Amino acid sequence: MDLGPPQFLTSILNRCIPRTLSAVRPNVTLTFAQSLDAKISGQDGAQLILSGKESMVMTHWMRTMHDAILVGIGTAVNDNPQLNARHLPPRSPLSGQDYPYNLPRPIVLDSQLRLPTTCKLLESYRNEKGRRPWVLCAQEPQAEEDVWKSRLDALEAAGARVVPVQTTEGLLSIPSVLQTLHELGVRSLMVEGGARVIGSFLAERDSVDTVIITIAPKFVGSEGVGYGVDISQVSYYEHLESQDVGCDTVVALNARSD
Amino acid sequence: MDLGPPQFLTSILNRCIPRTLSAVRPNVTLTFAQSLDAKISGQDGAQLILSGKESMVMTHWMRTMHDAILVGIGTAVNDNPQLNARHLPPRSPLSGQDYPYNLPRPIVLDSQLRLPTTCKLLESYRNEKGRRPWVLCAQEPQAEEDVWKSRLDALEAAGARVVPVQTTEGLLSIPSVLQTLHELGVRSLMVEGGARVIGSFLAERDSVDTVIITIAPKFVGSEGVGYGVDISQVSYYEHLESQDVGCDTVVALNARSD
Repeated sequence: MDLGPPQFLTSILNRCIPRTLSAVRPNVTLTFAQSLDAKISGQDGAQLILSGKESMVMTHWMRTMHDAILVGIGTAVNDNPQLNARHLPPRSPLSGQDYPYNLPRPIVLDSQLRLPTTCKLLESYRNEKGRRPWVLCAQEPQAEEDVWKSRLDALEAAGARVVPVQTTEGLLSIPSVLQTLHELGVRSLMVEGGARVIGSFLAERDSVDTVIITIAPKFVGSEGVGYGVDISQVSYYEHLESQDVGCDTVVALNARSD
Repeated sequence: MDLGPPQFLTSILNRCIPRTLSAVRPNVTLTFAQSLDAKISGQDGAQLILSGKESMVMTHWMRTMHDAILVGIGTAVNDNPQLNARHLPPRSPLSGQDYPYNLPRPIVLDSQLRLPTTCKLLESYRNEKGRRPWVLCAQEPQAEEDVWKSRLDALEAAGARVVPVQTTEGLLSIPSVLQTLHELGVRSLMVEGGARVIGSFLAERDSVDTVIITIAPKFVGSEGVGYGVDISQVSYYEHLESQDVGCDTVVALNARSD
């Protein structure tokens, strides 16, 4: 039984990351699973179980190594994720291990406050099985004022902390998201998806430190949803290390900060 | 110095491949290098050196293990490839090794006879450094009869053997290509690209036995050219084995023949 995260992860995530003086933000790990044909979900964003059990466990170890996990509203609605570490071996105080695992705070980028109040993230919080989710929304109401207020009140009543941030062209500004999270004490952030969030972070210079991609040895097909990489950004990612994990391959890249 | 192909390749390529009785064709290995974002060439098909030296050597070993290598006319024009095994260690009769390496026959899918007579494949043949290239074209002339005849004559004068095959919707029919090659004695075929050829073979059920993808740990960006996988075909590919080769990861899939 594994009692700690794989060496591969600790060496990658604990490396010294040079940071420009202007960047006041958490350390950011962008991570996702993809098929050989670089799809991360099925048609219309349908959830796919791409990675095998071993790399799922690795992802759960990775979660315990970050203060917070961020997903987009599309993923929150389509997958209704728990963002916990349930695939790790159980820990108990009797065994002398730290107890419990560090569970990262769930963060949902939800410019229009569409998160269902019945989602598992809020349910887990109410059942004391997860940390309080933060819902990051647009600073300016994205609906009639009373509709907006009732969405906001419902989410807060269900347990969410709603945090408004600046928008750029209708989307939450990634630098503002990162600055806000840093001000709220988040020092390490794992960004899990989906496609639009991955594309936004890959497009925004100096918003990512490490990219960890799990590649499953299968095709999804052209109808699946991929992620775009802006050509102006591709040279900022350099290979750190690759590792076979079960049938999957995990590739880690360093995002240069210049 | 490596004196033979990597064990990984021999076990994958020498495995017993069950074949339906109706399929009279060569064993087909579809192989290509791609980026993490599943691009195989740059903007407008521009050639990219994606894979590292070690996996280039592996690809050259793979070439020596097939009777013929097939590329599309796009790749033949854009990359002007040699399709030889020049990255392998030199062999000499004095060392008691087989000499020379088996050089596979180059095959170009060129429905319209666009292959330049000055290309390296024909030059190598004329210089006795490569086997005679076969140019597979459409059975029906794709131009005015005299233009077509002059293209054909020029290619034959430059050294090519021109072989007409059936077309389907303007493209060379993959089953006809494979049947023709089998009739001409080709028992093992390596299909190297480009994007359209890869897409055609992936879309045609029971035309491929093995897929070997080299994944380079870098992004190319959305402007690059990818390959499509028809969703009806994705379940026909199952994972055989993966192997780290230098910085790259090589993933081998088995194409089921039912």
